[in-house]
Amino acid sequence: MTTPEKGAYARAGVNIDAQDRALSGIGKLVRKTFTEGVLSDVGSFGGLFRPDLSGMKEPVLVASADGVGTKLRVARMAGDYSSVGRDLVNHCVNDILVQGARPLFFLDYVGAGVLEPEAMKQLVSGVAHACRENGCALLGGETAEMPGFYQEGDYELVGFVLGIVDRQKILDGSRVRAKDIILGLPSSGLHTNGYSLARKIFYDDLGLAVGERIPGASSKASVTRQLLEVHRSYLPAVGRVLEHPALNALAHITGGGLTDNLPRVLPKKTRAQIRVGAWEIPQIFRLLQQHGGIDTEEMLRVFNMGIGMCLIVNPSGVGEVLDVLKRAGERASPIGTVQKGGAGVVYDLGEHET
Amino acid sequence: MTTPEKGAYARAGVNIDAQDRALSGIGKLVRKTFTEGVLSDVGSFGGLFRPDLSGMKEPVLVASADGVGTKLRVARMAGDYSSVGRDLVNHCVNDILVQGARPLFFLDYVGAGVLEPEAMKQLVSGVAHACRENGCALLGGETAEMPGFYQEGDYELVGFVLGIVDRQKILDGSRVRAKDIILGLPSSGLHTNGYSLARKIFYDDLGLAVGERIPGASSKASVTRQLLEVHRSYLPAVGRVLEHPALNALAHITGGGLTDNLPRVLPKKTRAQIRVGAWEIPQIFRLLQQHGGIDTEEMLRVFNMGIGMCLIVNPSGVGEVLDVLKRAGERASPIGTVQKGGAGVVYDLGEHET
Repeated sequence: MTTPEKGAYARAGVNIDAQDRALSGIGKLVRKTFTEGVLSDVGSFGGLFRPDLSGMKEPVLVASADGVGTKLRVARMAGDYSSVGRDLVNHCVNDILVQGARPLFFLDYVGAGVLEPEAMKQLVSGVAHACRENGCALLGGETAEMPGFYQEGDYELVGFVLGIVDRQKILDGSRVRAKDIILGLPSSGLHTNGYSLARKIFYDDLGLAVGERIPGASSKASVTRQLLEVHRSYLPAVGRVLEHPALNALAHITGGGLTDNLPRVLPKKTRAQIRVGAWEIPQIFRLLQQHGGIDTEEMLRVFNMGIGMCLIVNPSGVGEVLDVLKRAGERASPIGTVQKGGAGVVYDLGEHET
Repeated sequence: MTTPEKGAYARAGVNIDAQDRALSGIGKLVRKTFTEGVLSDVGSFGGLFRPDLSGMKEPVLVASADGVGTKLRVARMAGDYSSVGRDLVNHCVNDILVQGARPLFFLDYVGAGVLEPEAMKQLVSGVAHACRENGCALLGGETAEMPGFYQEGDYELVGFVLGIVDRQKILDGSRVRAKDIILGLPSSGLHTNGYSLARKIFYDDLGLAVGERIPGASSKASVTRQLLEVHRSYLPAVGRVLEHPALNALAHITGGGLTDNLPRVLPKKTRAQIRVGAWEIPQIFRLLQQHGGIDTEEMLRVFNMGIGMCLIVNPSGVGEVLDVLKRAGERASPIGTVQKGGAGVVYDLGEHET
């Protein structure tokens, strides 16, 4: 009998036993995320979850799939895959949060040419860590070794989140009205969008090394550390106002920036008027704009520019919503309003015009 | 104002508008999969689905994530991405079917260096087609353009399926007993496993061109067409016996073959005894074995060898289960039994030893 390590499959670049070993340490991390609803153990064909439907009139499932984009390349450059798993989970959780849903469970997919045990452990522990922080179970996942498909050190990371919301509490933008106030919540950095451009500007055009600081940066962190700053989860703060009657919509500011994401929750024939001077744009965006020679309109469509989540709130409830957010440690600020007529986002660039 | 086509982001290799155009034709295909439960439209942050819980005592959600592996490379060689989407959906549907669940909805992720509209359309129409066939909605998805991460023409394709089952009807192998009969259902080919090895044998070692026939093959189809044969969904046939009291377990024969997948549903201190001569092994596996010089044990751990799904059935119900499957057009055959003692799979190789 041939041991698989020496067999034909191993010679073709796939080593089932090595994969099993790489994954064996991960089971413990995964089980730590298990919440009450989890009925299956690690390694079953599908993950089993019994949702708590008590108190729900008409339960609606909310699902989203996402990746991390080329932030994965920055992780590879840093030789540190521990943060991208957290990026992924938080991104997915935010994507269903904006429809009023709280996460039940998460599944991940990791693809690589060769699954290195240490990198795998970093990736999955990041995912597991963020799952615990968001109170959602890491119910399952898939790892795929695809020789020749991925370059050495590259890991593709895809996530799926499933959440639940009572139908009457779904946020879909239909309650948004002209004169509603748009509150912005700070991002922690680029989150998971604009990395192809940021890498081009910092590493290719400026020629920065992995550990170097960005010219003109006041932060002591290297360009790579700044770029790896973890995508925030807004669940801890926004979860506290999710059922507030004045909250009419939420928008997660991802690819497409404020420009493309705010209109996704605006009713027809309304537009968002945003005062770009209303919040402090983090220095990293100024440096990207300056070193990349990018105009402000494009910056606002590629990057979040310091706003990772928007709440659209009826004016009557703004004070209360801001109070709750403040008590949750969140620095929210009014950054614009919904206006009658037109479509999309209109920016008041004020003193920030370049 | 800069149009994004000419902007810095486009110069970094990402073209948001071209992505939007590539995706615009896909919306129609996706909407055709929508079932009664779907509450959201294409393009919302998360997909919304209201499950029909009527008649269920304790609804349990069953979720699975999967990819297609390097079968994607074969699709690239053929310049035809229309079948891998079907592979993906059927694979995922089978993975939750084995726990007794029927699919509610599916989400996909497509990653590429550059998203070519024609390839995208083929990929997503394959996914949408199979979703309709399986009666599950294509509720959402994500496409990611990651310049430099993927090679030209390579598309990563990842899927996530969510199904539902009443808790008392979950199949988890706990009812399996010694003397149970193992029925095998035919696969349509390699399904989605063993492609790194198959590609090495046929394209690298034998040097076959994309359109050539495999030496010794009786099929007139090219090696590439044979390798692209679509992974079957067992839902139409197995769905009819899912609640049969004699059905004790199901095993989807994927990566790891019969050797690794059958034991996943066997109770401790039992083993599966499989008669390799009990079914006709499709010629493609014989050709792989012969041209690759692979021993039978390894073949059985890398490939499905012609069995894509196993049913473990109490002897008293075997006749009835076989009848129902036959009426559904399924050619099931007894391929072995569950036996007391030991673990794993023991093969009776009979005349098929090489």
